[in-house]
Amino acid sequence: MNQLNAQCRLAARPVGLPQPSDWEYLEQPAPEPGDGQFLVQVEYISLDPAMRAWMNPGRSYVPPVEIGEVMRAAAVGRVVESHHPDYRAGDCVSGAFGVQRFAASDGGGVRHVDTALAPAPVHLGALGLSGLTAYFGLLDVGRPEPGQTVVVSGAAGSVGSIVGQIARIKGARAVGIAGGAEKCDWLVRGLGFDAAIDYKAGEMAAELRKHTPDRVDVFFDNVGGEILDAVLLRLARGARVVLSGAISQYNATAAMRGPANYMQLLVMRASMAGFVIFDYAQRYAEAAAELAAWLRAGELRSREDVVQGTVEQFPEVFLRLFRGENTGKLVLAL
Amino acid sequence: MNQLNAQCRLAARPVGLPQPSDWEYLEQPAPEPGDGQFLVQVEYISLDPAMRAWMNPGRSYVPPVEIGEVMRAAAVGRVVESHHPDYRAGDCVSGAFGVQRFAASDGGGVRHVDTALAPAPVHLGALGLSGLTAYFGLLDVGRPEPGQTVVVSGAAGSVGSIVGQIARIKGARAVGIAGGAEKCDWLVRGLGFDAAIDYKAGEMAAELRKHTPDRVDVFFDNVGGEILDAVLLRLARGARVVLSGAISQYNATAAMRGPANYMQLLVMRASMAGFVIFDYAQRYAEAAAELAAWLRAGELRSREDVVQGTVEQFPEVFLRLFRGENTGKLVLAL
Repeated sequence: MNQLNAQCRLAARPVGLPQPSDWEYLEQPAPEPGDGQFLVQVEYISLDPAMRAWMNPGRSYVPPVEIGEVMRAAAVGRVVESHHPDYRAGDCVSGAFGVQRFAASDGGGVRHVDTALAPAPVHLGALGLSGLTAYFGLLDVGRPEPGQTVVVSGAAGSVGSIVGQIARIKGARAVGIAGGAEKCDWLVRGLGFDAAIDYKAGEMAAELRKHTPDRVDVFFDNVGGEILDAVLLRLARGARVVLSGAISQYNATAAMRGPANYMQLLVMRASMAGFVIFDYAQRYAEAAAELAAWLRAGELRSREDVVQGTVEQFPEVFLRLFRGENTGKLVLAL
Repeated sequence: MNQLNAQCRLAARPVGLPQPSDWEYLEQPAPEPGDGQFLVQVEYISLDPAMRAWMNPGRSYVPPVEIGEVMRAAAVGRVVESHHPDYRAGDCVSGAFGVQRFAASDGGGVRHVDTALAPAPVHLGALGLSGLTAYFGLLDVGRPEPGQTVVVSGAAGSVGSIVGQIARIKGARAVGIAGGAEKCDWLVRGLGFDAAIDYKAGEMAAELRKHTPDRVDVFFDNVGGEILDAVLLRLARGARVVLSGAISQYNATAAMRGPANYMQLLVMRASMAGFVIFDYAQRYAEAAAELAAWLRAGELRSREDVVQGTVEQFPEVFLRLFRGENTGKLVLAL
């Protein structure tokens, strides 16, 4: 067939906020799937803050994207040609297909997507890695008990918006921290959060005190920086801080800012723990089934911020994440 | 009897490194013990970095020492007069008697001291709160397994020197971080640490790499600051960071420095947890018995840095801690 493939490859390691020139746009023939492979036409690309971290050199929980490599990304697409027994042309699948129009795959890390259950973009959000990250990070690492207070930063983002809803489902109070009145209003009125704090409005410490009268038992942090420091001062005894991300720090050009109030962990006999969603791969199915059940029952709402565009437009759409322009899961629809 | 009591009372909240003028020296009649009370003549005063934190206002794991209050301190002394059935004149006791020559007590938090087992100052060190802090912090929070690598900062201090020895007793590798060649030599040759790193010699990152070929499974931190940041970069997967103190930051006049590399906790699926020794009061006896058994068997060595002086000299002796002048447990002998 040899259709034309469009790709975004990493061209340079960004310093600070990435520039469009940190990627190279290329067009070349789509790959021919070999024996045991299939060809996927990518339809939806997941845009995640973690992708910024993958652009950095050095040790992390996954190897960095190398210069010249196709930019790594989770995506949903349709099988267009297959030499693999488990995948047929027309199947809808999700996997780490990268920022490109066509990807050849041997099925590693690929899941079938049931679009009868929910539209494809939802499988990148609430039913994808965002939902799984919220699920395991909150329930396995944060372990909220009924009646306890869960605070989540980046609450209007793909992971944060699900964290708060799962907290509510499990009988905890959910308080979200997000940027802007509109997002905060959506969290409370749209998703049922108990309260939302607009960090851009100032007075964060006072707002936090007001909305966490019994202090904070679980803090699910996607942001880092000042927000992490503010919440550390509100921890309850025995609190758990779940490190999921630090979007405020990903584009720092100077040394990253550490949490100056970290000794509150000692004062409050609290802990701070990191996790990596890929470690839970054996339990994805169990979690996905529960997330899907909540979604069907209307207990969990998924919101996708789907931007129509081309592979070439990936950089500009991706950078919306760091301007806080998305509400819910940011997806590039090709 | 009305003997003369000498006291150091808190006179001002220090900014940065305390000045002698932050305490007031007073002489006044010793208290008369009432019914159910006894009078202790203090002989040895424990000098601990944590005392600096108690001088600050605001929330911590214990209330601050108030202006005008006798400076809080653990001490060992002798009962000189008693109206309490469990204490007789001549008994040797330890408790939070404060920086003063005579203290009246009702027995709250007081333990009898067996000087046949070890000299009185040891009951402020290896057999006192220092030993208990090392014991519970390492074994309950750090949980090293045989063959794992334990790194401890402030390793030549009262807690750190015991942490490394308990790690060895439990079959782990012990690597100490301390200031100066002499202290490092003592850790390795005197106490049996597997290695010691002189942070004052520079090259800390390289030394750490060299002495932790399998990375760091447990980091017991008494120091904070640059040392914490350096060790975060050497964590093994699933590592535990135990927050016991942050002596490098206690006298900071600007905002405390947070660990810039804290996101290594995410990368390495690691955790950082604080603890407060007072929470383990119900288990002190169990731990003290084990520590005493190790001491008797020669598996654990205790070193006290005993300075002869008066109550009036407390400030200058206390400040040695922040110049790193002590090796082992710093004690003021009256």
